[in-house]
Amino acid sequence: MAEDGPARERTRRPGGRTARVRRRILEAAAELIARDGIGGLRYDQVAELAEVNKTSVYRNWPDRNALIADALATFAADVAPLHDSGDIDADLVDFLEALAAATASPQGRALLTVVASAREDPELRAVVDEVFERRLSTLDDRLKLAIERGELPPVETSFVAEMLAGPVQLFVTRGARAFTRADAARVTGVVLAGIRAT
Amino acid sequence: MAEDGPARERTRRPGGRTARVRRRILEAAAELIARDGIGGLRYDQVAELAEVNKTSVYRNWPDRNALIADALATFAADVAPLHDSGDIDADLVDFLEALAAATASPQGRALLTVVASAREDPELRAVVDEVFERRLSTLDDRLKLAIERGELPPVETSFVAEMLAGPVQLFVTRGARAFTRADAARVTGVVLAGIRAT
Repeated sequence: MAEDGPARERTRRPGGRTARVRRRILEAAAELIARDGIGGLRYDQVAELAEVNKTSVYRNWPDRNALIADALATFAADVAPLHDSGDIDADLVDFLEALAAATASPQGRALLTVVASAREDPELRAVVDEVFERRLSTLDDRLKLAIERGELPPVETSFVAEMLAGPVQLFVTRGARAFTRADAARVTGVVLAGIRAT
Repeated sequence: MAEDGPARERTRRPGGRTARVRRRILEAAAELIARDGIGGLRYDQVAELAEVNKTSVYRNWPDRNALIADALATFAADVAPLHDSGDIDADLVDFLEALAAATASPQGRALLTVVASAREDPELRAVVDEVFERRLSTLDDRLKLAIERGELPPVETSFVAEMLAGPVQLFVTRGARAFTRADAARVTGVVLAGIRAT
C-alpha cells in the first residue's frame, strides 16, 4: 500500500491532468461494468473507451478489484450526492430524488443487476460491500453533523440508510410510475419524524 | 366468469377434497416456478409433483397466467400472513418478521429473481402486478380496520407497503446479518410513529 502514497496524493490535486485521466478511466470502467458485468471488465477496453494508455490504467489501479470499487463508488457519489446545506431534511430529499432517478436510469438498472449477481462470488461480494460501506460513511458524516446541530437524535446510520433507500428501491423496481420530489419529501418526512418521535 | 361460480364455491368449503387438491396444485406450481421460472412452468410437471391428474390442473386453471398468479399469491399469503389481533403495531411486526424470513429463504430468493425477470415481459408483468395488488388489498383491509379504530390516521396503503417492505427487502438482499424481531419492531415503530406525527 505504501507505493500508493504519491499516486493518491497526486489525484487529489483538483483539476490536474492526472485527476482528469483518473475520472475518465473511472467513468469508462462504470460504463463497461454496466454493459458487460463485473467479471467482463477488461483493462484494454477501459483504456480504449477512456482514450488513455493502458499503462495509465495499470499504474493507477494495479489491483482490478480496487478499480471496480472506485468506479462503482464514484458513479454512486456522482449520480446521488449528499450535500450539507445546513438543513438535513432538505438535503435528504435532494439525495432521495437523485437516488431514485439514478436507480431508474438504464445504467443504474444495469449496475444494480450486476451488483446483485456479484453477491454470489465472495471476492466480488467484498468489492460490492466496500462500495456500500463508502456510501454509508458519506451518510454517516452528514448525519453526525445533523446530530451535533440538534436536528436529529443519535441514530444508527445503517438503519437510516435502509429506511430511506429501501422504499425508493422498491418503488423504482415496481415501476408503476415515476418517483417524484413529492415522494422523496414524503419518505424523508415520515422517516425523520419517526426517528424524532421514537 | 359465470362458469367459475360453482368451482369457486366448492374451493371455499374448508378442508374439502377439492380444496386440498387445489392447495397441493398451487404449492407444486410455486415450487416449480421457483425452480424453472415462470416461463418454464408445465402443467404435466405440476400434476406430477402435486400427485393429481393433469385434468385436475386444467379444470381448475384453464388459464395458465391465473395458475401462476394464484400460486404466487398463495405462497406470499402463506409465508407472510397479516393477522388482526386488534393491535396494528404488533400485527405489522409479526408480518415484517415473517416477510423477512420468507424473503431470505431459498424459495423466496428464487421467486424474487423470477418475479424481477418477469417484469421485462408485458404479459407476465401483468401477472406479477396482480399478485402485488392482491397483497396490497390484504394490507388495505387491515389498515382500514386500524384507521376505523383510531389506531392510525388515514394513510395511503401503497405508501405504507413501500415504507415497511422496502427496508426489509434491502436489509435481506444486503445479507450482512439476519433480520430479527427487534429489527421488525424498529422498522414498524419508526414508520408508524412517522405516520402518526405527520
